[in-house]
Amino acid sequence: MSTPTFTKPADATHEVIEMECAALVRWGMGDPDAFLEIYAPDIVYFDPGLKLRIDGLEEMAEYYESIRGKVNFERFELINPLVQTVGDAAILTFNYVSYNAKGEAFPWNCTEVYRRMGGKWKIIQTHWSYTVAKRA
Amino acid sequence: MSTPTFTKPADATHEVIEMECAALVRWGMGDPDAFLEIYAPDIVYFDPGLKLRIDGLEEMAEYYESIRGKVNFERFELINPLVQTVGDAAILTFNYVSYNAKGEAFPWNCTEVYRRMGGKWKIIQTHWSYTVAKRA
Repeated sequence: MSTPTFTKPADATHEVIEMECAALVRWGMGDPDAFLEIYAPDIVYFDPGLKLRIDGLEEMAEYYESIRGKVNFERFELINPLVQTVGDAAILTFNYVSYNAKGEAFPWNCTEVYRRMGGKWKIIQTHWSYTVAKRA
Repeated sequence: MSTPTFTKPADATHEVIEMECAALVRWGMGDPDAFLEIYAPDIVYFDPGLKLRIDGLEEMAEYYESIRGKVNFERFELINPLVQTVGDAAILTFNYVSYNAKGEAFPWNCTEVYRRMGGKWKIIQTHWSYTVAKRA
């Protein structure tokens, strides 16, 4: 499994964008720890496979353990990443495309809310959804 | 078209939850103005029908104009609404179900980020997605 490469707009420079890309590189090699390390204890989480929001780091760790080693992509792209800051909150939104070894594209919508505490940013809310979806 | 009724957990009392429910009542009668009135100028927005994030109130107004009068539900429910506050930011997440006149249920995931300015809460980020989705 090779290390994913990625592109993001050159003017997207906020610290949380760097953190997000670094975590996604490891995520693309099947390693969920990168995200678990930057989730706050009160993280809440949505993705298209869930029937209900996940609440809290413990539940997240359990969920990610079930997919450890299963995620694999070659390359990813952040489209128009935007950071809205409100004091110690940073709301990062972007469209996202991951590419597998065949070059097939998988587009997503993503909202990450980071909170700064003691000088460190941690994610308190994650929402991943498919770009252009239907009900399963 | 009747006024939608709704339920939310009795202990969910943050002001932004009240605002959200009030806007959803009007939304369920085909009126998008309720949300447009509480969107900040820098609102960003995702839903399952879009190919890219919408940026800014002007683009939102145009989008909502295209669906004015077309949304109609009888009843809705907020499941486990949670508000995480970070200074003047309030991150509201919930699972949501709307019901049409036949009683059919439509489940959603929702993240709203509100920002307080001059004592008023306005939405700066909205992310709606289908609960349990596949790519269209």
